Amino acid sequence: MDKSPQVGILMGSANDYEIMVEAARTLKEFGIPMEMTVSSAHRSPERTSRYAREAASRGLRLLIVGAGAAAHLAGVVAAETILPVVAVPIDSSALKGLDALLSTVQMPAGIPVATMAIGKAGARNAGILAAQILALGDPSLADRVRRFKADLSREIENKAIAVEERLRHDLG
Amino acid sequence: MDKSPQVGILMGSANDYEIMVEAARTLKEFGIPMEMTVSSAHRSPERTSRYAREAASRGLRLLIVGAGAAAHLAGVVAAETILPVVAVPIDSSALKGLDALLSTVQMPAGIPVATMAIGKAGARNAGILAAQILALGDPSLADRVRRFKADLSREIENKAIAVEERLRHDLG
Amino acid sequence: MDKSPQVGILMGSANDYEIMVEAARTLKEFGIPMEMTVSSAHRSPERTSRYAREAASRGLRLLIVGAGAAAHLAGVVAAETILPVVAVPIDSSALKGLDALLSTVQMPAGIPVATMAIGKAGARNAGILAAQILALGDPSLADRVRRFKADLSREIENKAIAVEERLRHDLG
Amino acid sequence: MDKSPQVGILMGSANDYEIMVEAARTLKEFGIPMEMTVSSAHRSPERTSRYAREAASRGLRLLIVGAGAAAHLAGVVAAETILPVVAVPIDSSALKGLDALLSTVQMPAGIPVATMAIGKAGARNAGILAAQILALGDPSLADRVRRFKADLSREIENKAIAVEERLRHDLG
Amino acid sequence: MDKSPQVGILMGSANDYEIMVEAARTLKEFGIPMEMTVSSAHRSPERTSRYAREAASRGLRLLIVGAGAAAHLAGVVAAETILPVVAVPIDSSALKGLDALLSTVQMPAGIPVATMAIGKAGARNAGILAAQILALGDPSLADRVRRFKADLSREIENKAIAVEERLRHDLG
Amino acid sequence: MDKSPQVGILMGSANDYEIMVEAARTLKEFGIPMEMTVSSAHRSPERTSRYAREAASRGLRLLIVGAGAAAHLAGVVAAETILPVVAVPIDSSALKGLDALLSTVQMPAGIPVATMAIGKAGARNAGILAAQILALGDPSLADRVRRFKADLSREIENKAIAVEERLRHDLG
Amino acid sequence: MDKSPQVGILMGSANDYEIMVEAARTLKEFGIPMEMTVSSAHRSPERTSRYAREAASRGLRLLIVGAGAAAHLAGVVAAETILPVVAVPIDSSALKGLDALLSTVQMPAGIPVATMAIGKAGARNAGILAAQILALGDPSLADRVRRFKADLSREIENKAIAVEERLRHDLG
Amino acid sequence: MDKSPQVGILMGSANDYEIMVEAARTLKEFGIPMEMTVSSAHRSPERTSRYAREAASRGLRLLIVGAGAAAHLAGVVAAETILPVVAVPIDSSALKGLDALLSTVQMPAGIPVATMAIGKAGARNAGILAAQILALGDPSLADRVRRFKADLSREIENKAIAVEERLRHDLG
Repeated sequence: MDKSPQVGILMGSANDYEIMVEAARTLKEFGIPMEMTVSSAHRSPERTSRYAREAASRGLRLLIVGAGAAAHLAGVVAAETILPVVAVPIDSSALKGLDALLSTVQMPAGIPVATMAIGKAGARNAGILAAQILALGDPSLADRVRRFKADLSREIENKAIAVEERLRHDLG
Repeated sequence: MDKSPQVGILMGSANDYEIMVEAARTLKEFGIPMEMTVSSAHRSPERTSRYAREAASRGLRLLIVGAGAAAHLAGVVAAETILPVVAVPIDSSALKGLDALLSTVQMPAGIPVATMAIGKAGARNAGILAAQILALGDPSLADRVRRFKADLSREIENKAIAVEERLRHDLG
Repeated sequence: MDKSPQVGILMGSANDYEIMVEAARTLKEFGIPMEMTVSSAHRSPERTSRYAREAASRGLRLLIVGAGAAAHLAGVVAAETILPVVAVPIDSSALKGLDALLSTVQMPAGIPVATMAIGKAGARNAGILAAQILALGDPSLADRVRRFKADLSREIENKAIAVEERLRHDLG
Repeated sequence: MDKSPQVGILMGSANDYEIMVEAARTLKEFGIPMEMTVSSAHRSPERTSRYAREAASRGLRLLIVGAGAAAHLAGVVAAETILPVVAVPIDSSALKGLDALLSTVQMPAGIPVATMAIGKAGARNAGILAAQILALGDPSLADRVRRFKADLSREIENKAIAVEERLRHDLG
Repeated sequence: MDKSPQVGILMGSANDYEIMVEAARTLKEFGIPMEMTVSSAHRSPERTSRYAREAASRGLRLLIVGAGAAAHLAGVVAAETILPVVAVPIDSSALKGLDALLSTVQMPAGIPVATMAIGKAGARNAGILAAQILALGDPSLADRVRRFKADLSREIENKAIAVEERLRHDLG
Repeated sequence: MDKSPQVGILMGSANDYEIMVEAARTLKEFGIPMEMTVSSAHRSPERTSRYAREAASRGLRLLIVGAGAAAHLAGVVAAETILPVVAVPIDSSALKGLDALLSTVQMPAGIPVATMAIGKAGARNAGILAAQILALGDPSLADRVRRFKADLSREIENKAIAVEERLRHDLG
Repeated sequence: MDKSPQVGILMGSANDYEIMVEAARTLKEFGIPMEMTVSSAHRSPERTSRYAREAASRGLRLLIVGAGAAAHLAGVVAAETILPVVAVPIDSSALKGLDALLSTVQMPAGIPVATMAIGKAGARNAGILAAQILALGDPSLADRVRRFKADLSREIENKAIAVEERLRHDLG
Repeated sequence: MDKSPQVGILMGSANDYEIMVEAARTLKEFGIPMEMTVSSAHRSPERTSRYAREAASRGLRLLIVGAGAAAHLAGVVAAETILPVVAVPIDSSALKGLDALLSTVQMPAGIPVATMAIGKAGARNAGILAAQILALGDPSLADRVRRFKADLSREIENKAIAVEERLRHDLG
C-alpha cells in the first residue's frame, strides 16, 4: 500500500469490515493499490462528502462502497464525484440485505451506482470489476484479468473431479 | 404563507408534487405556516445539505421529506439537522414503493427518520404528525388536533349510514 | 425515574424487553424521564386503551411503542391520543419483522405512526427521535442532541482508524 | 334484513364496500340474516370497541371484518369479543394487499382471526365460512351448504364443456 | 380422549408435530375432545380424501390442518367437507413459511380456509378459534372462552409488573 | 384433435383459458395431439382426482396444469398419477402470481411438479417441454424440436436487424 | 455407474454437492444410471456449453441442474440442448433461495426449464421427475415409480401411528 | 454512429427497445459512439457468446446489457469477456422486474455485473456510468460528465421554482 492508491474502499460501519476486506484482498491479488476507511452517510455526512469530493483530485480512480440496511452511502458518494462508484449491499438487518440491495440499486436517473451481489460475493466482485475497469487503460492489468478468468475455469475442472470422486465414494 | 414557515416540505423530484401537496394542504388546515421546495439527495447534494443545515436557524421546527425509489433524501437530511424529520416513501418505480419504504425506514442507529405510509396516506399523515408534534408547545394547536380526531370519528358515522343505505338498495 | 416521566414506552409482549430497553437506555442518556410497561392491543385492549387515553393528562408528551408480528399496538394507541406515537417493529415471527413493519407503517390517512427501523436500531432511534421532538421546547436538550450528533461523527473517525490498522495487519 | 341479524359485517372504510358487499350477497344466498356497517380501528376506536363488545349480547353469532393497508380492524374487534372473527384483507395500498394480509393473519397467540384471501374471493369465502360455522347448529343450513358445494362442482363441468368448445373453435 | 372427538387435527408431515401439538394442548385446556393424525395431500391423497369426506359423519365438527411449503392440505380437505377448516401454515422451507402462508390463505372463491398465523402462534390460535366456534352451541364452553380472555388480560398485568421491575434493575 | 391425445391440459378456472390456450397452440405446432378441459382442485375434487387417476390408462403421456392464487391443482393431480406434470402458475390475484408460483413450485419431497414461468411465457414453455419429453421416444418429433430451436435463433437475428434500423431512425 | 448414464447431474459449485447428491441417490434408488459433475455458467462457460451440446449425442436423456444465487446454469444449459432440463434452485445466498428460484423459473418463452422446489426437497423431486419421464418409455421403470408412490402412502400411515402414540404420551 | 463504437448495447428481446434506447440516447449526449443489437442468452446462445468473445477485439470497451424475467443475458455475456458489463433489469413479467433484478445482481463471486435500477432510470444510468468509466482515460469526456452533473443540480433549482409557484397557485 505504499504506492498511491487507485481505488478507495469505503464502508458505512466498522462491522462491515469482514465483508469489505474481501474487496481489498481481491485488489491486492490484481496488484492494484488501494486504501480503505469508514465513513457513514448519516453519522459523518461531512467526512463522507469531503471524501467523495476529494477522491478524484487525490488520484483515486474508482470507489467501492459497502453499506447495510437503508444503505445510502454509495448513492451519497456517487452524488459528489464523477468517479465510477461500485457498491456492495450488506446483510446486516432483519431483512437479510433486501433493504440494502434496494436502497443501493434503485438509484434515480442521473446518478448511477454499479451494484454488486449482497455480501461477500459482491465484495469480491467489486474488486474484480475495479480491475476490469482499470484494465481498460492498463494492458498488463488486462492480462492479469484474462489469466484470472482462465484460472476460474481451471478451478471448476478441479472441483468437478473432486465432486465426481466424492459421489463414487458416497453412492458407490 | 406570509407568516414565517414552521415546517419545511422537501421532495426529491418535481414529480412527487401530487403526493406531497397533500402534506402542505394538511398543514394549512391546521394553520401551520410552511414552505415547500425540491431538492435531490443525489442530483443537488449541496443544495440539500445546505437546506438541512440551515433549517433550524431559519426557524423551521420540523421537516417533511418525500422521495421514491432508492429514497435517500430523508436520511441525508436527517444526517445534517437536529430537527425531527418525517418521511413519505413514494411509489414511483417498478417495485411499487417497497424500495422507497425500505430505503427510508431502515435507518441505522443514530439517525432516526419518522416514516409514514407509502403515498398519499403517508403525506397526509406527515402533516398530521407535524401538527401533533408542534401541538406539544402550542395548546391552541392541540385543541385543533383534538377536534380533528373527533371529526374523523364523526365522519365514519356518516359513512356508516351511507353504506347501510347502499346495502339496503343493493340487496334489498 | 423519580421525576415525572415525559415519555411512555409500551411493548406488546414482555419478550420485546431486550429490544425496547434500548429506547429506555437512550432516553436516560439524554436525561429524559420515562416509564416503561407492557400492554397488548389484543390481549389487554382495555388496559391499552386506558393507557393511551390517559397518557396526555398524566403528563406524558410522547409514546414509544414496540410490537411484533401483526403489530397493531402503535396504531391502536395512536387512535386514542393526540400525542406523537413513535413505533418500533420487532422481528419476532417467521417473517423476520416484515409483517411487523408493514402492520406498523402502512397506517391509513388520519392516524400517523412515526415508524422506525426493525429491531434494536429502531428502538435506539425511537429514543433519539423523542429527544429531537422534546428538544423543540427545551434548548438545553437541544444542546445535548447537537453534542450527540457530533459524537457520532467523532466515533466514526475512531472506527476509521481502527479499520485502517486492521487492514494493514491483515493484508500487510 | 327484517329477521334479527346473525352475522355482522364491518369494514374499515366506505371504500371497501365493493369488496365487502360480496360477503353480504353470499350470506343472503344462504338465507342468513346480517347487518353491515363501517367502523375504523383508528378513526373511530370507541365505536369499534363498542360494536365488538356488544355484538354477542345483540345476538350476533359471527363477525366478518374487511380492511386494507395496516389492517388492524379484525384484530381489534377480535380482542373484544368471544365471537369468531373472519377477516378479509383488502388491496387498497401500493403494496397490493400484502400489507393487509400480513397485518391480518399474523395475530399473536391468544386472539385468532380467521383470515381469508385478499379481495373479492376472500369476501365471498367469508360468507361461505360463516354459513359452514352456523351450519354446525342448523341442519337445514347444512343442507344448503352441501347443495352449494354440489353446485360448484356442476358449474365446473359446464365451464369445461364451454372451454372444450372454445378450443375447438380457436385451434380447429 | 375417551370421549368422541369433536375436532380433528391433521398435519401433512410428522415433522409438523411440534407445532401442531400446540393446537391439541389448547383444545385440551378447553376440554374439547379431539384426535390428531398425519395425512399428506400429495403422498397419501386417498387417505386425505377419505378423512375429509368421513369427518362430518364420524361426528367431527371442525378440522384443524397444518402444513408447510406448498401447503395444499387444508385446501384439499376443505374441498371435501362442509365442516369449517382452520389452517396453520408451517415454516418448514427456505422461504420461512411465506410459501405455506400464500398457499393456504389465497383460496379461490367457493372453498374457504380459515388461515391462522405461521407456526406456533397459529397452532395455538387454531385451538382457540375452534373453542370460539364450538362455543356458539355450548354456553359452558362460551364461559370458559370468556374466562380465558380475562386470564390473558390478567397475565399481561403480571408481565407489566415484571418488566417494570426489570427496568428498575437494569437502568436504576 | 382426431388422433388420440397424448397431452392433457387442465386449468383450474375457465378464466385461465387465454393463458392456457398458448400451451395448446404450441402442442399443435409440434403436431402433438392433445385435449384441454377445466377441473378445480377445490370445487370439483372428484372430477380432478378421476382425471388424474385415469390419465395414464386413457393413453395420456403428460399433463399440463394451469392455476392461479393458491394454485393446488398441479400438486393434487401429480399426487394421483405417475405421468410427468408440468405446471403454469397464473397471475390472477392481487399478489401478481407470486402466490401461484410458490403454491406450485414448493412441492414437498415425493411429488414433483415441473414448474414453468408465470403466465403466457410459462404456458408456451409447457408446450415446448412436453415436446422435448415426448421427443425422447419419437425421433421425428426430436427433429421438429431441433428445428424449432434453430428458428428461435434465426428470429433473433431478424429482430436484431429491425432494432438496428429503428435505432438509426430514432437517433440518426 | 458402469452402465452408460441416462441422466446428467450438473451443479454450479462444488458447495451444492450436499443438496444435489439427493438427486443422485434418488436416481440410484430407481436404478437409473447417471453421472454428476460441476460446471459454472459464468466461471466455465465453454465447459458448460460443451456439456450441454454433447449431452444428447453422448446418450444422456435428461439433465438435472442445481444452482444458487443468480442461478443461470439451468437456463444456459437448456439453451443448448433439446433434452428436458430439470432445475433445482439452491439456497446459498442472503436471500434464502428466492433469487435462485426466480432466476430459474422465470424463463422467457422458447426455452423451458422444469423447476423444482428450493433445496433438498427439490433435488429429491428432480430425481423422481426424471424417473417419471424416463418411465414413459420403460414399463419396468414405470412399475418402480408406481411402487414408490404406494410406499409414500404406506409411510404416511406409519407416521400417523407414531404421531398418535406420541400425542397420547404427551397429552395423556 | 460512423465512428467506431466504444460501447455495445445488447438487449435480450426487441421488446426491450423502448427502455434500452435510453442508454443509447445518453451515450449520444456524451458523444460516445456506440452500437446496439439484440441477442438472447437462451434463444441465440451462440450469437450471444460470439458477441461477448469478440467485443474486446472489435474495439468495444464496455457492454450495456438489458434483459427481463430470468435475466441471464448480462451474466452470460460477462462470463465471456473481460470488458466491464453494465446491466439493466427490465420489468417485463408479472413480478414487476424483481425477478430480473435478482437474476442480474446476485452474480456469484468471480463474474461481476454492474447492476443498475429496474427500467428507464437504469438504462439512463447505464449510459452515464459508461461515460464515467470511459472518462477515466479521456479528460474531455470527464469535463462533459462534470458539466452534466452541474446541469442536474441546476435543473433541480428550476424545478424547485416551478413547484413553489404551483403550490402558491394551489393553496394560495
